[in-house]
Amino acid sequence: MPHAPDLIADLTAAAHAAADAARPETLRHFRTALDVANKEDGGFDPVTEGDRAAERAMREVLGRLRPDDAILGEEYGAQAGSSGLTWVLDPIDGTRAYLAGAPTWGVLVAVSDAGGPILGLIDQPHIGERFFGGPDGATLTGPGGQMPLHTRPSRPLQDAIVMTTFPEVGTAPEGQAFVRVAQKSKLVRYGLDCYAYGLLAMGQIDVVIEAGLQPYDIQGPMAVVKAAGGIVTDWTGGPAHRGGRVIAAANPAIHAEALALLKD
Amino acid sequence: MPHAPDLIADLTAAAHAAADAARPETLRHFRTALDVANKEDGGFDPVTEGDRAAERAMREVLGRLRPDDAILGEEYGAQAGSSGLTWVLDPIDGTRAYLAGAPTWGVLVAVSDAGGPILGLIDQPHIGERFFGGPDGATLTGPGGQMPLHTRPSRPLQDAIVMTTFPEVGTAPEGQAFVRVAQKSKLVRYGLDCYAYGLLAMGQIDVVIEAGLQPYDIQGPMAVVKAAGGIVTDWTGGPAHRGGRVIAAANPAIHAEALALLKD
Repeated sequence: MPHAPDLIADLTAAAHAAADAARPETLRHFRTALDVANKEDGGFDPVTEGDRAAERAMREVLGRLRPDDAILGEEYGAQAGSSGLTWVLDPIDGTRAYLAGAPTWGVLVAVSDAGGPILGLIDQPHIGERFFGGPDGATLTGPGGQMPLHTRPSRPLQDAIVMTTFPEVGTAPEGQAFVRVAQKSKLVRYGLDCYAYGLLAMGQIDVVIEAGLQPYDIQGPMAVVKAAGGIVTDWTGGPAHRGGRVIAAANPAIHAEALALLKD
Repeated sequence: MPHAPDLIADLTAAAHAAADAARPETLRHFRTALDVANKEDGGFDPVTEGDRAAERAMREVLGRLRPDDAILGEEYGAQAGSSGLTWVLDPIDGTRAYLAGAPTWGVLVAVSDAGGPILGLIDQPHIGERFFGGPDGATLTGPGGQMPLHTRPSRPLQDAIVMTTFPEVGTAPEGQAFVRVAQKSKLVRYGLDCYAYGLLAMGQIDVVIEAGLQPYDIQGPMAVVKAAGGIVTDWTGGPAHRGGRVIAAANPAIHAEALALLKD
């Protein structure tokens, strides 16, 4: 069901306000000596002060502007609401990039109903770029101004650029599935985290493939890519907003070509 | 032999002038539809209009400011000089990142005598960041102003961040050598091209390992890393300015630890 324009305007304003509040908190701790706690024994999942401070700042803004909505955040979990809408927040997607000083991490914000994200954004505070997508389309706002975002027209996978975060995508079988797509593509790039979805929405690349995602990893990027004309599904072609194995593609033709290889 | 301060000041000014001239040429073609020629049959080595235009702009500036120096550039080859100094230029290092719209490529400029680079820089035009290194130290100049650059103090490889451009580093044996280092390190990141050397100079990461480099790929980054207190050698511990297999490290201790694994 389409949402009323007034509601979309309110949600849009709240999403930007949340991302605006997160920016200084993430930048305050970027490229400084970080006190890194390990969330998982044996794994490397840095939780920085920036991560936690940014989510607190976003929750404060949303609690004020959208008090009846639920919130699901990476750092502070779920908070119930009564509106049927949920804000899905990842204060720093790409904590490894953040830790290494690389400008490819982002703040992810989405607001969803039962069907998935209504609108969302990817914000890169260091560069000052924000990719936004909603019912009225997708835009990039940055140092050079604002531009509309549109995914690329169809091209064969053999002429396509594919991105993923890690050379080792998910489990061993998931990695093998990724390699089947990678081997048929023209160019594979690694390690850009959520920024890859921005490049997909911008029409610079053709496919992003990931596995092991949480809802807060994908809902912001998904809103941007879909609003720019792309397709985001899981590896069976079903809904992707709950996370897991995700493929985002510039258009239906290359989505189908890559999906067939993932399923093999 | 140390060079006279006047000469260093002249070379510094010329290096910045060359990078300033390259910026608009690279940005003019960044994130637009590119006409990509393939330099190598079977390989994917995009030569963009931006690449060629940026090198022409740098050669024009250097020809004017430093007419007696030689020039070695990626796109237009070697031009002889009479001063004993050579400018080593890579107009777009990381053409794959450039092609994909990712902000991790850079313009590389160095000036060398027979012993290697005297000074050099890594410029990232989209973000507006310039890493510079010379006899007076290393700096980062960007949207937030200028800061001195210093590599990290020593830490064991098991606590270190290692970067390289591709998961497949060079040949199969080179790749195996890289994996020996990667497996002992805390975190490996891929795909940042020359930007990785900037992060090393900034004290954000510990080691960069690459293979198959040309002189113009390494001389600018090498000047920055060394001026920030780091070490850059080939995989035998010898000079790195001619390219090939290169390891850049934050300090002697981690250089020795990683080098031993590369040599095994």
